Amino acid sequence: MSASTAKFAVGEPLSRKQEFIWSEYMSGSSHQGCTEGLARFISDHEQFPAQARSLAVDAVTDCIACIAGAVHEPIVPLLLQVVPSVSWRLNAAPERAATVIGLGRSAAAPDAAYLNGAMAHALDYDDITHPGYAHPSAVLVPALLAAGEVVNAKGSDLISAYIVGIETIGKLGSALNQEHYKRGWHATSTLGTMGAAAAAAHLIRLDSRRAAIALAIAASSAGGLRANFGTMTKPIHAGMAARNGAMAALMAQAGIDGCLDIIESPAGFAAVFESGKINWNALSDWGSRLEILSEYGIALKAYPCCGATHTAIEAAQILRANLAGRVDEIHRVRIGISEMARGPLLSNWPTTPLEAKFHIGYCVAVALLDGEVKLSTFAQERLSDPLLIQLMRRIEVYVDDRVRDDGEFASVVSLMTVKGTTMEELVLLAKGKPARRLNRGQLLDKFLDCNAFGNTVATVANAATRQFELLQSLDSDIAVRDVVDELAFSGASPPHLLDS
Amino acid sequence: MSASTAKFAVGEPLSRKQEFIWSEYMSGSSHQGCTEGLARFISDHEQFPAQARSLAVDAVTDCIACIAGAVHEPIVPLLLQVVPSVSWRLNAAPERAATVIGLGRSAAAPDAAYLNGAMAHALDYDDITHPGYAHPSAVLVPALLAAGEVVNAKGSDLISAYIVGIETIGKLGSALNQEHYKRGWHATSTLGTMGAAAAAAHLIRLDSRRAAIALAIAASSAGGLRANFGTMTKPIHAGMAARNGAMAALMAQAGIDGCLDIIESPAGFAAVFESGKINWNALSDWGSRLEILSEYGIALKAYPCCGATHTAIEAAQILRANLAGRVDEIHRVRIGISEMARGPLLSNWPTTPLEAKFHIGYCVAVALLDGEVKLSTFAQERLSDPLLIQLMRRIEVYVDDRVRDDGEFASVVSLMTVKGTTMEELVLLAKGKPARRLNRGQLLDKFLDCNAFGNTVATVANAATRQFELLQSLDSDIAVRDVVDELAFSGASPPHLLDS
Repeated sequence: MSASTAKFAVGEPLSRKQEFIWSEYMSGSSHQGCTEGLARFISDHEQFPAQARSLAVDAVTDCIACIAGAVHEPIVPLLLQVVPSVSWRLNAAPERAATVIGLGRSAAAPDAAYLNGAMAHALDYDDITHPGYAHPSAVLVPALLAAGEVVNAKGSDLISAYIVGIETIGKLGSALNQEHYKRGWHATSTLGTMGAAAAAAHLIRLDSRRAAIALAIAASSAGGLRANFGTMTKPIHAGMAARNGAMAALMAQAGIDGCLDIIESPAGFAAVFESGKINWNALSDWGSRLEILSEYGIALKAYPCCGATHTAIEAAQILRANLAGRVDEIHRVRIGISEMARGPLLSNWPTTPLEAKFHIGYCVAVALLDGEVKLSTFAQERLSDPLLIQLMRRIEVYVDDRVRDDGEFASVVSLMTVKGTTMEELVLLAKGKPARRLNRGQLLDKFLDCNAFGNTVATVANAATRQFELLQSLDSDIAVRDVVDELAFSGASPPHLLDS
Repeated sequence: MSASTAKFAVGEPLSRKQEFIWSEYMSGSSHQGCTEGLARFISDHEQFPAQARSLAVDAVTDCIACIAGAVHEPIVPLLLQVVPSVSWRLNAAPERAATVIGLGRSAAAPDAAYLNGAMAHALDYDDITHPGYAHPSAVLVPALLAAGEVVNAKGSDLISAYIVGIETIGKLGSALNQEHYKRGWHATSTLGTMGAAAAAAHLIRLDSRRAAIALAIAASSAGGLRANFGTMTKPIHAGMAARNGAMAALMAQAGIDGCLDIIESPAGFAAVFESGKINWNALSDWGSRLEILSEYGIALKAYPCCGATHTAIEAAQILRANLAGRVDEIHRVRIGISEMARGPLLSNWPTTPLEAKFHIGYCVAVALLDGEVKLSTFAQERLSDPLLIQLMRRIEVYVDDRVRDDGEFASVVSLMTVKGTTMEELVLLAKGKPARRLNRGQLLDKFLDCNAFGNTVATVANAATRQFELLQSLDSDIAVRDVVDELAFSGASPPHLLDS
C-alpha cells in the first residue's frame, strides 16, 4: 500500500474533472439561470403587444401558404412512404393525432409536425429571422398546429406560443451566431428545435420545471448539417425540428426528466453547439425586448426564390415599368450585388427549378419579361424558354461598391436599351422585411399563388380566400382544431384524387 | 455606375466563400473519398471472419438481455404515452411494423427501434466500444431488428450488418475522439446514428450511392448531449439514434437525396462534430482491419453498474472468497482507482438505485456481502440495509499510483480484518473486456438474471433459456422475424397482465 498518495473517503467529493472542461465559459455569471429564465418565460408569459400578435398572425398565415404550395412537391410521396403512422384522415381521429395539411391525412402529432415542417420549407418561400439565421415558421407553425390539436388549444394561445418560439430562436441565435451557422449547423433545425419545444411547452401549459425539461430533451434531439443544402434533406431538417420540438414538450409533460440547466450546463446546448465566444448577455433577460418586434424580426418572402435575389427582382420590375413593358428593347443588363450575396447565389447556368431559384440572372430576366416572379416562374419548361435565355445572356453580375458591405442583400440593376438609353434602380431592402412588412393584399396574393401552385382545379381560389380569412382571424377563441379542419384537404384535391 | 470594380458574367463562378471556412481541414488529401469508401464498404462487403461473427452474436444476445431486464423500468410506460404508432401486437402486423421486445406490442419500424433502444440502455448494463466512447449495441441491435423485420432479413445478414455498424462507429470514433466526447457529445447517440444507418443500409441492401445518402440523412439527425446524463433522457439518446439511423436507411431507399460526401464535406459530419484535429487516416481504409476484432472491440458488462466499478467488484469477490465469507471480520476496506475512474464515479452517498450503480463503495460493499452483483442488487430497499451501510462506512477510495494512469479502470482493493490480517487484490482488466471475453455460461447467467429482473413469474427461466439458445443460433438462415416473434412477449407477461 506504499504507493497511494491521494485519499478520498467515501462521501467526500471526488472532483469530476471531465465535467468542467469548458470552465472558461463558466467564469462569468451572466449565463447562470438562463435556462430557468427561459423556462419561467415559457410558463408565465401570456400578454404580448398587439403589434407582436399581428406579426405572428401574418407569419402563421404565410407559413400555411408555403405548405399549401408544396403539397405536390416530389418530396411528399417519398416521405409518406417512410414516415410512421400516417393514415387517411378519419372523421374520428385517434387521440394524439394531428392533421397533415392539404393531403387529407392524419398522423400521430409528432409525425404530422414532421410532414408539415418538411412541406413548409420545401419551396424556399418561407420566412427568415435574424439573428437566428433561421427559417422560424417552417418549424414553429407545424409544431404548434400538432400540439394545439392534441390539447385542443385556442388560436390566441397558438399566437402567444408562436411569439415564445420566436423569442427562443432569436435570443439563442444572438448568443451563438454567426459562428453557430458558419460552423455548419443549419440553424433552422438546431435553434428551431429549441424554439419549437419552447413554443409547444407554452401551448400545452407546462410549468417552468417541465418547460426546462422540454428544452433539455429538445437540445439532445437537435441537429442538422448545412452540407445537406441543395438536397431534399434540407427541408426535412425543418420537419425534424418541428417533430422533435413538439415531442420534447409532450415527453416532458408525460414525466420524462432531463437536465434542468441545459443551456448553460458545461456539456449543454450553448457550449456544445458553439466553438467560439458565447454572448451570454443575450440570454439574461427573457421577454424584456421582444425579438418579433426587433429590426431583425420576421422577414416574409415576397418572391419564391433565394432572399439574395429579391431587391434585384424589385429593381427589375421598376425598370420594366419604366420601359412600359418594351423588354425587346433591352440591350444589356448589369446587376450589382453585395459581397454577402455571393454566398448563397449560384453562378453556373441553371438546369433545374431549384437552381433557378438561386440564380439571380434567371430571377431578374423573368422579372423583366413577366413583371412578376411567382411559383410557376420556376417551372422546368420555363428554363428552356428561348426569350428568357436570350435575355439572360445579356446580363452580367458584379459586386457594386455602393452595396458591397450591405448585409441586407441590397442590389442595383441597370440596363441599356438598343437606342442607347441607360436607366438604373437601387433597392436597399426587400419587400417583406420588417421595415417593409407585406400588406394584407400582398399576403393574400402570395397565399393565392401558393394555393394555385399546389392544386390543379380552378375552384381553389375561393377555398383559399376562405382559408386566408380564417387564418387572419386566428388570434381569437377559435379552436386550432377547427382551423386545421379547414386546411386538411387541398381546395381542389379530395382524397380520392390523391395517390394513396 | 462608376463605383463597380469586380465583374462577373453570369455563368462565371462566383466563389462561394462561406462554404470553405474550414478549408484548413481540407488541406490534406487523406479525407477525400472517405464517405464513398464507407458507402462501398456498406454495399459491397459480405464476408467477415468467423471470430468477428461469433463476437457479434454474443453482443446481440447480450443486448437482448439488457432490453429484457428493462421492460418494467419507469421510463417504459412514459415513453409508451408519447411514442407514436404503438399498438398491441397483431397477428397480422401492418407493413413496415416491427416488434417492441418484451411488451407484446408492435410499432412502426422506426418507433420500435426507438423504444427498444431506450430500453437497451436504461439499465447501464449494455456493452461499450472504444474508441467510439459509445454503447454500440443499444443502438445497432434495435435498428437492425426493426429494419430486419421490414425486409424479412436472415439472421446471418443481421450479423454482417452489425459488424458494419461497429466498423462505422469505431472508425468515426478514431477520427473524432476524444475531443468529440469531451466537447459534450454523447457519442452513443451521435456516432451511433451513423453506425445504425450504415448497418441498416447494409441489411436492406442499399447500393453505395444510396448508402452514402443514408449516412447524409443520419448525420443531419445525429445529436445528444452529455448534459442529460443521469436522467431518463440519456437512454432515450440510444433510442433516438436507433430510430434515426433505421429511418435514414429507409428514407434513402425511398429515394430521398442528400449530400454524397457528408463525412468530409466542409459543413459535414467530421468538421461540425469536432472542434480540434480530425484523424482522417482512420477513415481511409474501410474494412481493412476490423474494429470488432481490435483490442478496443466490444466489452460486455459482467455487472449492471458503472464500468469503472467492475475491477474493484471482482477484487472484492476474490477477497470475500479468501475470507471464506466471514465478512463480519472486515475492519477496513480501501479501494485504489485510476485518475480516469474519477470521471464517471459518484462520491456523494447514494440515495437512488441509479446513484448506487455509479458509487464504487456501494458496489464493493455488496460484492463483499453477497459475493455477486446482480440487477436486484440495486433495489431501492437495499440502499437502507444496515449491514451494507455499516460496511460502506469502513470503505475509503483513493487514487493508487499503481493504476493511476490505467485507461481500463484497473483497481486495487485491500482489506484489514478485525484480527489485523491484511489482504489485497489487484485486478487490471474487467471481465467482459475483449481480452477477457464472457464465456457462454457467464453470458447465459447474465441473460437469465436480466429476464428474472424484467419479469415476475418463475417460469421465465425456461423461456429465457430458449430465447438464449435461439439468439446464439442467429448467424444462420433463420428469419429475423421468427427470432423477434420469440422475443415479443416477456416470458411471464402475456399481454393481459401488462398495463395498457
